[in-house]
Amino acid sequence: MSAEVEEMLKRFQTYKNIAGIIIVDNDGIPIKTTLENTQTVHYAALMQSLVVKARQVVLDLDATNEFTLLRMRTLTHEVILAPSDDFYCIVIQKPSD
Amino acid sequence: MSAEVEEMLKRFQTYKNIAGIIIVDNDGIPIKTTLENTQTVHYAALMQSLVVKARQVVLDLDATNEFTLLRMRTLTHEVILAPSDDFYCIVIQKPSD
Repeated sequence: MSAEVEEMLKRFQTYKNIAGIIIVDNDGIPIKTTLENTQTVHYAALMQSLVVKARQVVLDLDATNEFTLLRMRTLTHEVILAPSDDFYCIVIQKPSD
Repeated sequence: MSAEVEEMLKRFQTYKNIAGIIIVDNDGIPIKTTLENTQTVHYAALMQSLVVKARQVVLDLDATNEFTLLRMRTLTHEVILAPSDDFYCIVIQKPSD
């Protein structure tokens, strides 16, 4: 497991109210997770489609640009997608009360 | 123009470093914009596909849930997508120096 993945995992684990962290390679394969398997596979597949769409939208607007972070707030959680060169990190955060 | 749209526009115009604001109906048709036409149409079409994908991903994970805000940071800007019932707002923000 690359040092970069470990580093990213450690960084996000310091965040408050973390419900789960998944590290996914650019093919959508989860390589590290704090969730159980079914949830991991489900999140990874869905977030992969969102990461691909976000990358495409940004490139379409400006081919020299890249998306560096995506935060999606829902009624129940906040999901953070942090891309890196070879993988991206999914952080699921419960709203702070 | 509904009061709700005007209200949302006013709220976002108070944000700092605003590069543009577009209000788009749920069919992807821009109904209000601070940008020129070509840019408005381009942003609306692309962000429409991201809003649709975000809604689908959230519903797929939990059919009772909804996405309430999406922030996408890129190398040059931050784009905020704020959905409402009949429309959503695209706010393009320059990073604060």
